[in-house]
Amino acid sequence: MIYFGVDIGGTGIKVGVVSPEGKLLHMDSAPTQAALGYEVLAADIAALINKIMSEKGISLDEVGGIGLGCPGSIDDKNGVVIYSNNINMTNAPLCDEVKKHIDKPVYIGNDANCAALGEYFALNDSSIEHMVAITLGTGVGGGVIINKKIYTGFNGVAGELGHTSLIMDGEQCTCGRKGCWEAYASVTALNRDAIRAAEKAPESQLAKEIAANGGKSNGKILFGCAKNGDETAIAVMNQYAKYVAAGIVDLINIFQPEYLVIGGGVSAQGDYLLNPIRKYVSAETYGGSLVKNPEIRMATLGNDAGIIGAALLAL
Amino acid sequence: MIYFGVDIGGTGIKVGVVSPEGKLLHMDSAPTQAALGYEVLAADIAALINKIMSEKGISLDEVGGIGLGCPGSIDDKNGVVIYSNNINMTNAPLCDEVKKHIDKPVYIGNDANCAALGEYFALNDSSIEHMVAITLGTGVGGGVIINKKIYTGFNGVAGELGHTSLIMDGEQCTCGRKGCWEAYASVTALNRDAIRAAEKAPESQLAKEIAANGGKSNGKILFGCAKNGDETAIAVMNQYAKYVAAGIVDLINIFQPEYLVIGGGVSAQGDYLLNPIRKYVSAETYGGSLVKNPEIRMATLGNDAGIIGAALLAL
Repeated sequence: MIYFGVDIGGTGIKVGVVSPEGKLLHMDSAPTQAALGYEVLAADIAALINKIMSEKGISLDEVGGIGLGCPGSIDDKNGVVIYSNNINMTNAPLCDEVKKHIDKPVYIGNDANCAALGEYFALNDSSIEHMVAITLGTGVGGGVIINKKIYTGFNGVAGELGHTSLIMDGEQCTCGRKGCWEAYASVTALNRDAIRAAEKAPESQLAKEIAANGGKSNGKILFGCAKNGDETAIAVMNQYAKYVAAGIVDLINIFQPEYLVIGGGVSAQGDYLLNPIRKYVSAETYGGSLVKNPEIRMATLGNDAGIIGAALLAL
Repeated sequence: MIYFGVDIGGTGIKVGVVSPEGKLLHMDSAPTQAALGYEVLAADIAALINKIMSEKGISLDEVGGIGLGCPGSIDDKNGVVIYSNNINMTNAPLCDEVKKHIDKPVYIGNDANCAALGEYFALNDSSIEHMVAITLGTGVGGGVIINKKIYTGFNGVAGELGHTSLIMDGEQCTCGRKGCWEAYASVTALNRDAIRAAEKAPESQLAKEIAANGGKSNGKILFGCAKNGDETAIAVMNQYAKYVAAGIVDLINIFQPEYLVIGGGVSAQGDYLLNPIRKYVSAETYGGSLVKNPEIRMATLGNDAGIIGAALLAL
């Protein structure tokens, strides 16, 4: 038996063939025709699945189900995209529409939640009951696994872990509030803070590399300068680790999961970023040394997490 | 069938007889001999239960089970008090010890979690799956009901909702961190902020009443002055409502529960405090108007919530 995982993005649809163990066996993609509505999107998804089945000689009997990972607010119980800015949809019954083309069970989940489910399966330990995943990227995404399942709340939109106070009334967040964790722990925020620090230290390597990059910073510049010993970059990185860690402490005090997994571009930094984060977290979590502590680790699936997790919705 | 709920506090043990519907039928209490260890505590609990059974003519056959609500870090799966400062215990197998005296199933939970379970049953709607309860008192306690059960994480100590960042590196919290929600939303914090505001406005009614009370503030003084139109008190109350609301927004963005219930002394203020909280929350939660929103309400069981919830552990 195989499962189809679909990662629906603003510009492209990616479809993967996934084994029951969560292994990505094959992948193909097509552009997202977001402006044409959910009926066209569903038809495009079905066409891509049919193309893969034909090319790979997969019969319908071998397909256990289809899972859709979609940005925005999702009603997973009813298979409806409540609202998605990226793919221009409101109250779209996407699961039923896909099912019109391919008569198999169709499930849907928020893309960050699907990525969390993918990383949960990648832990490859069925004794694990609870896991929290965060994705540090343009924003801060989150996904919570409770009792081995994605937790979505009563309305489908739980797990907005990036939109929790870190410094009330602080930096402006994209969600409208000020001071959300996302406004400090996203890569967007890291780049902003690197540029601010560079402005104050024009002789630093960080400032010079940002200037050479047209005034823009990125993870490669910041972590590269830090590893090279540039004190300005090191200070930015340490403060960033502290911001990330503070939010992780909050999540541990709330959830006490077996694992907390960090994904997104910065996860490539591995222990270089994890070590200071772990240090801050272990100093600040509630309860101290008498209880078992959650393990913090980097995500392992990269960009495939969403497709794999979407497929596993159908498991 | 009835259930015994036991609320173990630093100074007293309260035992209640609770119906399967969560109604408190009878209650009795005894002092806590905290210094004498868990064996004595278990014997005292059993003696109090036996006394009630004898007085009320309850036979052992009618007892469905016993639930213990206990402050501190609890390993609910194994029935062990991991650590409790208030009752001076470390790694105490309290459930097994009580069972030695009374041969019935014995369960244990953190006291704040038991109170949450009590309030969950008080909603009296079995269709409700998720609820978050907070208690605004000396500290800020929390309890999370997920899929109709108390959520305790993998190590038993989840749900420390008061120990999450509101203003990172802000006011000192009792847990060792700075800037926890508890350091702004507890009644202790409210009293601190009232005193600070009074010092800056010595002509205010608030300042005069605090002075007349030996320099100490409390909820009665603060809310009394605010209701009387004292601007200093009104400003303190509005800021407090904003602090409380900011943490509630965080919890809603994370959990999206059907209900969020506020307990503790300030819950007596009812709509006077709830209305500004609801206003802030509805302006700041993520997702906006397209999804169903959680309902925020005050707790209804008062001090009985812990006993009732403890008994319901055995249901």
